[in-house]
Amino acid sequence: MSMRVTPTDLIPMARGAAVLGGGGGGDPHIGRLLAASAMRELGDVEIVSPDEVPATACVLPIAMMGAPTVMVEKIPSAGQISLALETLARYLGRTPTHVACMEAGGVNSMVPFVAAARLGLPLIDGDAMGRAFPELQMVLPTMSGVSATPMSIVDDKNNKGVFDTIDNNWAERLARSATIDMGCAPIVSLYAMSGSEVRDCFVPGTLSLCLSIGSAIESARAANQDPVEALVGALRGKLIHTGKVVDVTRRTVAGFARGEAVVTGLDAAAGSQLVLKFQNEHLIAELDGEVLVTTPDLIVVVDAETGEPITTETLRFGHRVAVVAAPMDERWHTPAGIELVGPRYFGYDLDPIRFDGTPSEGARLGAC
Amino acid sequence: MSMRVTPTDLIPMARGAAVLGGGGGGDPHIGRLLAASAMRELGDVEIVSPDEVPATACVLPIAMMGAPTVMVEKIPSAGQISLALETLARYLGRTPTHVACMEAGGVNSMVPFVAAARLGLPLIDGDAMGRAFPELQMVLPTMSGVSATPMSIVDDKNNKGVFDTIDNNWAERLARSATIDMGCAPIVSLYAMSGSEVRDCFVPGTLSLCLSIGSAIESARAANQDPVEALVGALRGKLIHTGKVVDVTRRTVAGFARGEAVVTGLDAAAGSQLVLKFQNEHLIAELDGEVLVTTPDLIVVVDAETGEPITTETLRFGHRVAVVAAPMDERWHTPAGIELVGPRYFGYDLDPIRFDGTPSEGARLGAC
Repeated sequence: MSMRVTPTDLIPMARGAAVLGGGGGGDPHIGRLLAASAMRELGDVEIVSPDEVPATACVLPIAMMGAPTVMVEKIPSAGQISLALETLARYLGRTPTHVACMEAGGVNSMVPFVAAARLGLPLIDGDAMGRAFPELQMVLPTMSGVSATPMSIVDDKNNKGVFDTIDNNWAERLARSATIDMGCAPIVSLYAMSGSEVRDCFVPGTLSLCLSIGSAIESARAANQDPVEALVGALRGKLIHTGKVVDVTRRTVAGFARGEAVVTGLDAAAGSQLVLKFQNEHLIAELDGEVLVTTPDLIVVVDAETGEPITTETLRFGHRVAVVAAPMDERWHTPAGIELVGPRYFGYDLDPIRFDGTPSEGARLGAC
Repeated sequence: MSMRVTPTDLIPMARGAAVLGGGGGGDPHIGRLLAASAMRELGDVEIVSPDEVPATACVLPIAMMGAPTVMVEKIPSAGQISLALETLARYLGRTPTHVACMEAGGVNSMVPFVAAARLGLPLIDGDAMGRAFPELQMVLPTMSGVSATPMSIVDDKNNKGVFDTIDNNWAERLARSATIDMGCAPIVSLYAMSGSEVRDCFVPGTLSLCLSIGSAIESARAANQDPVEALVGALRGKLIHTGKVVDVTRRTVAGFARGEAVVTGLDAAAGSQLVLKFQNEHLIAELDGEVLVTTPDLIVVVDAETGEPITTETLRFGHRVAVVAAPMDERWHTPAGIELVGPRYFGYDLDPIRFDGTPSEGARLGAC
């Protein structure tokens, strides 16, 4: 199934992408403006399901790398985005047939539309994680043995780099240092894949999911229904808390936005206090000292009234918010998935807990 | 004029290279062993004068990048050295015809012999600075507008990178971060040049000069003559001090070995105290508070008895040393040269002083 995406579709899609960002991934707003402008100039973008991609296709994913706190102020150029893709294609000596999205959550849902419009290539409806995570090896293809490299990295000044590393952790390490030198917002193209690899490793349908989530929120608002309830439905998730943000601490460390937020319960949740721990994305939600849900499941903070997702870098004192948890791809709950993105990787000494309160299959890693 | 270099020739050549290292550039000893081993296995290396290189030649220089303090402990592999060259050649889509040396001072005099032996290519008798300097943009080709990039960088684990930057300072910045991540001793291939560019930008004859310097020291020793006097003659330099090292402070900062050494005068120099300031290489020599000679001219510390050059990382209390100054390529003394490698670039608020006490032409920069 393929679908033509117009600049107008990007509005709800970006909202849905901010939801899947789980507070991180960078605000998609600026990316959406850039994508809409490229599409108005060069035409709509066709998104195709992973099923339709020929096995021998040359698929080049593209993303912005860096700290969301910087990304909201430093706008990439459309030229920088296509240059990253062209640099990788040239190094590989291949002609790309499809553009892909690594991270459906946040700004990286929109960046691939710019590349697809400029190169006139179809974009794959899916992504490599189903949400947003802060490091480049934190994707399902890593678990399937797909190499992140060769990867390209291009900054706003047109400095270019290519890394070709022995594993995906080394790719993260070298690209992270370059990202910091390059001002914390370069564009990267990485995890070049065949069509078969995309079918094996991608979470299918995440771009159209973003569109459904965003549309559900908008329709509920238009019909004077509860947008938070609509969001919970679209995500097949669960409302875990509503309340007022009473404290936020955040700092940008080694290219990441880290911190904690405290939400004091209102209405039905009165008397309860939720603590959110984030590193770019929300990773842990703790209600009155009890861990409710952890990475890899999704924790999203939205405006309690409008259902509008709030990123960790814009969260502030006084916000009335609803906190929603939702299940993520099952592969994240395997031991290999938990090793890559479980609470312990981020420095929290906790077993992973799913959105519905059950422990993750990978939780047995905690016994090591 | 071309010349066949044998593993035996490398012994005096490495000694001469340590002299041109001016205390830095890394001890050539380990590089020499590696080069000798490659040459014993694969054959002698032909060194050719820049004059003989065809205008359209594809010349790929090669070097080790990093902190000399680490380089003496972390030995590159011959495979790593040829991989760096092959990675650049592949990125350029060119077949190299010649290998070249960026830095005749120190270990980087020897590294190109490994590549030349392994690839069966001639090596150019010359280098891009005539000595050693700590940053990659500090070469004569920078002044002629030759780009350092595309450049390759390869570590001991076979992680590879390519940088393609907007100027040579950006190449230094990105490659320096990668160098630190890669453990402070990667191999780089950079400043790909045509034969005409080599003729324009290189200091000709520096590899054979290393051989003459080393041979002069050895012959003097064999003939029971003063090796320091022989060294001064071979360098067309000047003895500026003899004495005992009474203090050395050094630290490795951001990939560089920085510090100071104090030499208390003996014999004719009794009562005088020389302070040497170094950042990998000796940059300033100050006698009793008066600046005698500065970068870009050469300051070399050798064992007072044997004439054996001493690198800044092995200099220690109690060493009886002779300190020799020597003139460097005239292009370093132009305003552009002084901007790149003059005392102020290194953070010393001083006008440059030549080995013979006259001010450098570029000294007028001091008036800015």
